[in-house]
Amino acid sequence: MTRITANEFTGATFRPEQFVQSERRNSKLNIDQLNLFVESSPENAQLTHDLITQVTMDPVLKTGSDYYDMDKAQHRKATALKIAKMALYMEQDIQMAFKKYRNHDVVKGLQTDNEYPILTAKDLGIFDKRLSIISNQDPQLGTRIGVHLGLFGNCIRGNGTDQQIRYWLQEKGALFLKGIYGCFAMTELGHGSNVAQLQTRAEYNPKTDSFVINTPDLPATKWWIGGAAHSATHATVYARLIVNDKDYGVKTYVVPLRDPDTFQLLAGVFIGDIGTKMGRDGIDNGWIQFQNVVIPREYMLSRFTKVVNSGNDVRVLTEPTLDQISGYSALLNGRVNMVMDSFRFGSKFATIAIRYAVGRQQFAPNNDKSDDASETQLINYPLHQYRVLPHLAIVYLISPAAFKLMDTYHTTLEQLYKVSSSGNKRELKPVSMKLKDLFIDSASLKATGTWLVASLIDELRQACGGHGYSAYNGFGKGYNDWVVQCTWEGDNNILSLTSARSIMKKYADLAKGNTQTSESFRYLSPELVMGVLKGSHSAKLETLEDYTDVWGIMLIKMLHFCVKLVKETKSTDSISKHLVMISRFHAFHSMLRAYYLKLKDPSDSHVTDENSQKMLWSLYQLFSLYFIDKHSGEFQQFKVFTPDQISTIVQPKLMGLLPEIRKECIPLTDAFKLPDAMLNAPIGYYDGDIYNNYYNEVIKNNPPEADGPGKPEYHAHLTTMLRRGFQETEDLGKLGK
Amino acid sequence: MTRITANEFTGATFRPEQFVQSERRNSKLNIDQLNLFVESSPENAQLTHDLITQVTMDPVLKTGSDYYDMDKAQHRKATALKIAKMALYMEQDIQMAFKKYRNHDVVKGLQTDNEYPILTAKDLGIFDKRLSIISNQDPQLGTRIGVHLGLFGNCIRGNGTDQQIRYWLQEKGALFLKGIYGCFAMTELGHGSNVAQLQTRAEYNPKTDSFVINTPDLPATKWWIGGAAHSATHATVYARLIVNDKDYGVKTYVVPLRDPDTFQLLAGVFIGDIGTKMGRDGIDNGWIQFQNVVIPREYMLSRFTKVVNSGNDVRVLTEPTLDQISGYSALLNGRVNMVMDSFRFGSKFATIAIRYAVGRQQFAPNNDKSDDASETQLINYPLHQYRVLPHLAIVYLISPAAFKLMDTYHTTLEQLYKVSSSGNKRELKPVSMKLKDLFIDSASLKATGTWLVASLIDELRQACGGHGYSAYNGFGKGYNDWVVQCTWEGDNNILSLTSARSIMKKYADLAKGNTQTSESFRYLSPELVMGVLKGSHSAKLETLEDYTDVWGIMLIKMLHFCVKLVKETKSTDSISKHLVMISRFHAFHSMLRAYYLKLKDPSDSHVTDENSQKMLWSLYQLFSLYFIDKHSGEFQQFKVFTPDQISTIVQPKLMGLLPEIRKECIPLTDAFKLPDAMLNAPIGYYDGDIYNNYYNEVIKNNPPEADGPGKPEYHAHLTTMLRRGFQETEDLGKLGK
Repeated sequence: MTRITANEFTGATFRPEQFVQSERRNSKLNIDQLNLFVESSPENAQLTHDLITQVTMDPVLKTGSDYYDMDKAQHRKATALKIAKMALYMEQDIQMAFKKYRNHDVVKGLQTDNEYPILTAKDLGIFDKRLSIISNQDPQLGTRIGVHLGLFGNCIRGNGTDQQIRYWLQEKGALFLKGIYGCFAMTELGHGSNVAQLQTRAEYNPKTDSFVINTPDLPATKWWIGGAAHSATHATVYARLIVNDKDYGVKTYVVPLRDPDTFQLLAGVFIGDIGTKMGRDGIDNGWIQFQNVVIPREYMLSRFTKVVNSGNDVRVLTEPTLDQISGYSALLNGRVNMVMDSFRFGSKFATIAIRYAVGRQQFAPNNDKSDDASETQLINYPLHQYRVLPHLAIVYLISPAAFKLMDTYHTTLEQLYKVSSSGNKRELKPVSMKLKDLFIDSASLKATGTWLVASLIDELRQACGGHGYSAYNGFGKGYNDWVVQCTWEGDNNILSLTSARSIMKKYADLAKGNTQTSESFRYLSPELVMGVLKGSHSAKLETLEDYTDVWGIMLIKMLHFCVKLVKETKSTDSISKHLVMISRFHAFHSMLRAYYLKLKDPSDSHVTDENSQKMLWSLYQLFSLYFIDKHSGEFQQFKVFTPDQISTIVQPKLMGLLPEIRKECIPLTDAFKLPDAMLNAPIGYYDGDIYNNYYNEVIKNNPPEADGPGKPEYHAHLTTMLRRGFQETEDLGKLGK
Repeated sequence: MTRITANEFTGATFRPEQFVQSERRNSKLNIDQLNLFVESSPENAQLTHDLITQVTMDPVLKTGSDYYDMDKAQHRKATALKIAKMALYMEQDIQMAFKKYRNHDVVKGLQTDNEYPILTAKDLGIFDKRLSIISNQDPQLGTRIGVHLGLFGNCIRGNGTDQQIRYWLQEKGALFLKGIYGCFAMTELGHGSNVAQLQTRAEYNPKTDSFVINTPDLPATKWWIGGAAHSATHATVYARLIVNDKDYGVKTYVVPLRDPDTFQLLAGVFIGDIGTKMGRDGIDNGWIQFQNVVIPREYMLSRFTKVVNSGNDVRVLTEPTLDQISGYSALLNGRVNMVMDSFRFGSKFATIAIRYAVGRQQFAPNNDKSDDASETQLINYPLHQYRVLPHLAIVYLISPAAFKLMDTYHTTLEQLYKVSSSGNKRELKPVSMKLKDLFIDSASLKATGTWLVASLIDELRQACGGHGYSAYNGFGKGYNDWVVQCTWEGDNNILSLTSARSIMKKYADLAKGNTQTSESFRYLSPELVMGVLKGSHSAKLETLEDYTDVWGIMLIKMLHFCVKLVKETKSTDSISKHLVMISRFHAFHSMLRAYYLKLKDPSDSHVTDENSQKMLWSLYQLFSLYFIDKHSGEFQQFKVFTPDQISTIVQPKLMGLLPEIRKECIPLTDAFKLPDAMLNAPIGYYDGDIYNNYYNEVIKNNPPEADGPGKPEYHAHLTTMLRRGFQETEDLGKLGK
């Protein structure tokens, strides 16, 4: 039945596209200004728009609905083809970043000219953004390149000397997806989060001035290594530095794995495929075992730890302050990106579910059973508004925090690089302080953002009913691809605990007179803390700022409670459940604060239209109220709000905002400016023609034969079963005779 | 690296199996008695054991780790082979149920002998259980047979006359997976939950005394129909009965789709494949469109609605009381089974995650960095105990409620069948009352159970870190297969709303003096309600019974609040968020009550061992406390507990139970008696040898070639990329000349 016949009928036939379009006609919002707000600036918005157009139009890079029918082998091949294409875009992006396009080949310069500066993360900014945007339609591609650039690359950038950085990343060409392809061999079968306990060994041999890499036992097998199974020619390996039988702890080394021409494994390198995963099968995760693999001393990344062989004795020199931090700095880039991913991935599914909720009808008003009573749109049910609209607010609230974090990351790492090159000790402390704050914020925002989006996808899929379960509407693969973000590059629970412990330490330090300067810890001001503890400063929801500040008050009360408990119990175990909450609430506070500051300042928000401003403030309030209500247990238990305040203030305000935001829910999703090709989910396409679009994608991917799907290949087994006769049983009487 | 070499090494090498085994050595529990408790009786326990052995040993039925690497086509074929094998077991199961094995073929009798009784749901009890157990290792198989027996079969059984039941289910052989294979054509592209608004038309033609079935437009296309794409020869179709242009609403009809011999589609039947889904790809869900398909009048299922053609006039006779209920009764069976599935599926993943948590080590105590400090087992972290152990309690608490519901279902439907045959009006009311209570309980337990297990799988996967994301440890496919249970056969939100509305009505009826007799509504006793509202009866946690009763008190207070609000607002919309909670809390109360009654009575619980009793009571308390804490927002807001009671009673009790239950967590999972073949997840195998088992399954399914995974087929694209030269740019200067 085609689009035409679908409209031949009257009566109950649905016209979902008319609902969606009328929402747009009646809108009072300025979509372009809203887009500038979520994309943080006109320059960013333009760049995002150009990149989206390119990755959705490029015949190699684009992702259609056939994507949902690919098996592992097909995904891996398609991903490889896309990587090769991305490499060409990359050279162009670097060229543009250098603004040296005429009569000049920047890449050649970087590879061959020693006078050329070392490429900074900023120089790769355009390509990083391209990667983050294409990850939104094909996450596995993002990972497969991200492991090479973000993990392998940043491991060298963070732990290598300037010569090593220049050699591996520029001369050899790694940064341009040339010459070598890298993977990041940190995790082992038996060790994930506990990096300090990794068991792979790198023993220094003074006679040959080289390291011998070994995998001592099965649990020390490098595991989950993205790119190892098929793509990688080199790996940055985390292994224990052993010199003269002394264990200096885990350091990093560049270890060649394959001949880049033949892709043959090198001597002593054993590699296997880890096989099928919950999602992201386009990534060739592998395992690696080393048997006496020899690498020259120079392959150890020696920015902070050096092995010096004077001939008659061997010494190990270490820069204590930065050595440890830098070991993890490779993971920072991933965490910061995952916060941005949370915004982009979330915006996709919010758009799909809200357009479906507007177009889909179910039950007549008050369950009126008469045939002519036209059915109610899902979005008009208060329960459905409560199920979907807060997720829209979540997406809007993640954006400013994500852009702010990205910015802090770039500036801080640039400083770190400068300081560690200059070796200026005095400048070390302030930088490492900044780095520590960056670790806390990125950890709590990564954990919170990825968790929020995991439940966003799950709850919005359920809000789309059965059609949400169809592969072609994207929720299934979307969820399977997404949830690994809650585990890798720092398990969300571990990250929450570590960040919360550091926040507790900051809180405890207040007593010693150490005050906080960074914006995200402003709730730790001595005045506010005293006011809250004395009870002179209590929570309210009158001004817009209050909606951020209540979370600061909540945090102070929980921190106070935890610090007290730890003093008594001498252990943080008893409060680990609370610590996870503290990290989450800290992230909420950072998100609300970043959003508040941006929206308050039109020159920063780029939103001058009054209705749009008003709506953005409503989303801000909805976010805060939704989570106060979700966590009303903590808010009442720690006496931030009384039970009656929850009933008479928080919940009525919350339920009151929903119908108001519902009025503009379609324009608010249009403002993300995601083309259908990026959504890749027919029930969420722009024109709102749910049933025809969905039906057409299903038919396209499952064309019925002339006579329906026809006989299945296994048809004989069924007919044999259906046609079988009776199982006559023996006449046992006879046998008895 | 093999099992042997893995043990050649000392030092940091892990010995997870030793941890798991020592837990068993130190246990004080009686595993056999615990198993009798969760399996509800010795007979059930024995039957479960026998069936598990059969489905895990049978070479056709068993499911290995290769299952996780199958594509859609492979899954569908494997499922068809399993169906054919299950058909043979089925005949045996019916034979055994009849206890007429000698000199007699029961199936032949049922198919050919009119004196034979009509087969009841009880007679199929053994096979139903076999189905429910095999669904635990291969859910898609369970569905594919379940749609035929449970939906197609029960639709005929619930809506057909005795002759129709005998004809379709016995003579034609449907009940024995013979002759015809059925599907259940209810849902349409445009209509899911709102059955009354389905648009497929069945127009009666008096001249030919037949119905003409039509699909009026695209949204009326039958959609999601399990078995339609390839397997089904017949369908029970939900369509509007139109007689002389009058619409009598939605009735049910048996419509032939394919020739059972050739599997060719019949005239006017258009069928397509719905394609890939989030999970359960072994089910051939399809779409169906009817174009003037003619069926004889006798194919309308006419137990409650008849079309009588006297020759000169046509009348439609309806039995109002039961007609509507029976329309949905086909779905009851599925809902009841899903509560049992929740117990079985949950027990599988609880076992995997807890064995992993005991075997897996991470970080030294107090993050001691020294190499020799052996690392802490995950399960010894309070946070990890809080993350996994409550899920163990959930599984234990679902079991008694699931068995009780199954029992009520069988007795109630038998009564319904008797009454509707006898046509004895006086007996109608009590039965339909029972049926309504069954609808409420099954709805709230189905919604709550399936939601609990969805988050159980998700949270326990995260508790297994990266290894939980590997396909071979079962969480991925397990989650994808499971979550559809939250949507189909009654969307969880819709079910929650309808059951909660009925509970509200019962509460309101108290004022009219209508009291409740059924166990699951005991909290609606006038005395208790008055006591709670007057404040003379307040919540406490002293006796074991209190742990159930607090939920009754919570429910009364919420119901009171909601009824009041509805009186004011004249609509239930404003409280829909609360209604979902009421349904959830009602389910918690039913689960706790059923568990309490069973455990209190040793002749019912079969647990005489004191330690085991004590531990079962601890799980009971943990369940109640865990959810009081999770919902402490509601408990404080509705003043069941004060903030201080939450801090000083609920949470300390909760955290205090965890270490106690942790001591026996391995035996408590062993008590489910799930063999490795049923778990199909190496990190959860019985011997606890996590790393060797997991590594071996990965190698088995991804055997490395002599030289590692070797060159990927797409290798050329990568080398071309890595070997590409520089992009010389024109000397524009020259061109300028």
